[in-house]
Amino acid sequence: MEHSYRFADRMRRAPESFLGTLFAVSRDPEILSFAGGLPGSRFIDTEGIARAAEEVLEHEGQEALQYSTTDGYRPLREYIAERYRKRLGLPATPENIQIVNGSQQCLDLVAKIFVNPGDGIGMESPGYLGAIEAFSLYEPVFHGVPLGEEGPDPERFAAVIRDARPGLFYAIPNSQNPSGATYSTESRRMVAETIEESDTIFYEDDAFGELFFDHRPRPPVSALIPEQSVLSGSFSKTVAPGMRIGWIYGPEPVIGQFNVAKQAADLHSNHLCQMVLSRYLAGHDLDAHIRRVSDAYAGQCSVMCDEIDDLLPPGVSHTRPQGGMFLVARLPPEISASRVFEEGIREKVAVLPGTPFFVDGGGDDLIRLNFSSPTEEEIKEGMRRLARVFRRLGGS
Amino acid sequence: MEHSYRFADRMRRAPESFLGTLFAVSRDPEILSFAGGLPGSRFIDTEGIARAAEEVLEHEGQEALQYSTTDGYRPLREYIAERYRKRLGLPATPENIQIVNGSQQCLDLVAKIFVNPGDGIGMESPGYLGAIEAFSLYEPVFHGVPLGEEGPDPERFAAVIRDARPGLFYAIPNSQNPSGATYSTESRRMVAETIEESDTIFYEDDAFGELFFDHRPRPPVSALIPEQSVLSGSFSKTVAPGMRIGWIYGPEPVIGQFNVAKQAADLHSNHLCQMVLSRYLAGHDLDAHIRRVSDAYAGQCSVMCDEIDDLLPPGVSHTRPQGGMFLVARLPPEISASRVFEEGIREKVAVLPGTPFFVDGGGDDLIRLNFSSPTEEEIKEGMRRLARVFRRLGGS
Repeated sequence: MEHSYRFADRMRRAPESFLGTLFAVSRDPEILSFAGGLPGSRFIDTEGIARAAEEVLEHEGQEALQYSTTDGYRPLREYIAERYRKRLGLPATPENIQIVNGSQQCLDLVAKIFVNPGDGIGMESPGYLGAIEAFSLYEPVFHGVPLGEEGPDPERFAAVIRDARPGLFYAIPNSQNPSGATYSTESRRMVAETIEESDTIFYEDDAFGELFFDHRPRPPVSALIPEQSVLSGSFSKTVAPGMRIGWIYGPEPVIGQFNVAKQAADLHSNHLCQMVLSRYLAGHDLDAHIRRVSDAYAGQCSVMCDEIDDLLPPGVSHTRPQGGMFLVARLPPEISASRVFEEGIREKVAVLPGTPFFVDGGGDDLIRLNFSSPTEEEIKEGMRRLARVFRRLGGS
Repeated sequence: MEHSYRFADRMRRAPESFLGTLFAVSRDPEILSFAGGLPGSRFIDTEGIARAAEEVLEHEGQEALQYSTTDGYRPLREYIAERYRKRLGLPATPENIQIVNGSQQCLDLVAKIFVNPGDGIGMESPGYLGAIEAFSLYEPVFHGVPLGEEGPDPERFAAVIRDARPGLFYAIPNSQNPSGATYSTESRRMVAETIEESDTIFYEDDAFGELFFDHRPRPPVSALIPEQSVLSGSFSKTVAPGMRIGWIYGPEPVIGQFNVAKQAADLHSNHLCQMVLSRYLAGHDLDAHIRRVSDAYAGQCSVMCDEIDDLLPPGVSHTRPQGGMFLVARLPPEISASRVFEEGIREKVAVLPGTPFFVDGGGDDLIRLNFSSPTEEEIKEGMRRLARVFRRLGGS
């Protein structure tokens, strides 16, 4: 007889997951995948990281392989703080920074410290599906605000902050996932001013802020409202995701609670990779590396945009990212994203339907396309396959 | 003006943390620490791990540094499953196993999938403080069951399971932290039979089951109630804690929900360390390594027991562990554990008071002593310092 399990109520809130399917799809070698969210493997400096690992294990092996503190390896936090000071002018210190297992863990822990069941969480619409998955288990009420190419709709944003009083508003102002949108300076100011009149915490996820094609940093919203914001970052897109090293930066009372939650969650992030990464960064010019990566992504994005314009039906429009790894294409009314996904798999090209990015329904008129993982040649071939899909589905 | 933050209600449930203090204390080079929970650094095979890291980064670097799947690196899960089959006779497959960031993460995620606010959680008393910290944030009602040297008090155990109907009962049947107690065969049977008549899930934390001084495995309680249990394990005590690699083993419906929670929490555990560990294990005789470690710990434990008997007042009694890393000493009524802690720091010896191990008060008559991290010489010197503390506090 099968045992009947009493799972916690929160588990019923878990959205149907796409991430697992996606990772699986991105491992089928015959499928050209625009569906995943992987940085290009060819841009990972495995040799440099191998040398750093060798040095750490030779000179500091016992320390690297032993338990450590919850806040994270201090030289790594110093590096992050200094980079924030130089690059973005933030008054960051190591005390304001905690290391996590990739910035996905910030989503879990920030929700854990701020969100009671039934509390509001504001999000961009479309919004990052990993955030929707993490937040859902805290049983919030989601409030979506439509996201345009310049930022969230100001009136809807103000209405959500004022009327729903969400504990958090979660956003990716730089090269958003999935849309690729980057907030304008005016939009950043609007967001900060609206937040400042509320007691909402602005949760700024900056996974892509280093990857602008013009190499110019954009000023974080957090800088305008330092007491009412947290800012998360990650080495997954700039160095390597497989080490799972991200961080959170925020005001000390918040970081204090975050530390309590992190310690309860897993004591500390893996110490070996923190030390390897720290040594790697000390011996390498990260700016030069990022410049190479973002130049390549700029080229890949440009090819993808051109191929959509040239090969897909005229009813398909798309965003034009200034950086990052993703864009979205909007489909003509007669074609649904889920059909494009299904037919795409048959044609050996994978795209991600927009539906999992919406907390309030919709999204079947959008597909998310990743341009960081495939090469330019793969983008061209994938787009040819996608064109066949659209022809079969009758796009005009 | 300081911003006033609206933290979630669950954060008020966080117990005052000792772990942070402890890690700090264990880094002051002048203090001889029996307070921490570190495996002996001298038993970490840094050279072997360095070679494995070199090989992985040379031959599979791009894969190791890229995103991966939530369940964990399959060859590592196969290794764990095979070891369970051979060593404990469990019908384990990789599908029943998920990799986590050290088994502390299982505490968080198992509570996440099973515990609603107000649900009961049963625990040994004293119980593992890291579990109390993790579970507390799920706002449970704790039910402590007194733990003797042979296992939990049978009547109290039955009463808690029957009357409180906790969703989980959490236990460490092998060389428990803090007490060092190991359940007898009879106690294991009693626990399984009582659980079987309930719908409680038995959460068996087996962090120390490889470290028996007689090298004999003890049969897990989980084997008797496979549908109603989860079993967690860790490489932190056998190979190296700094890689943060542990796992959970359980029935498929539970593992499915666990996977959802793990993905939301941090996508996956660090892939580089999973691959390094897997390669290390493939090329090394883990049994031989563990035999060396547990022989050393047996010697250190024996020295510690002898020194307590010889140097501390006769009113001090202590457990006699069969394995693991900890024992507890019970103090005479006139001496409080918190005073021993405070005076110990002045005398440059650190012990851990019993209070944080109790969900229902008490514990100031106990101290936990770690014998895995210090050498035999350090144990002797530390015990001399501790004897001075007791003399000053007037122990007779």
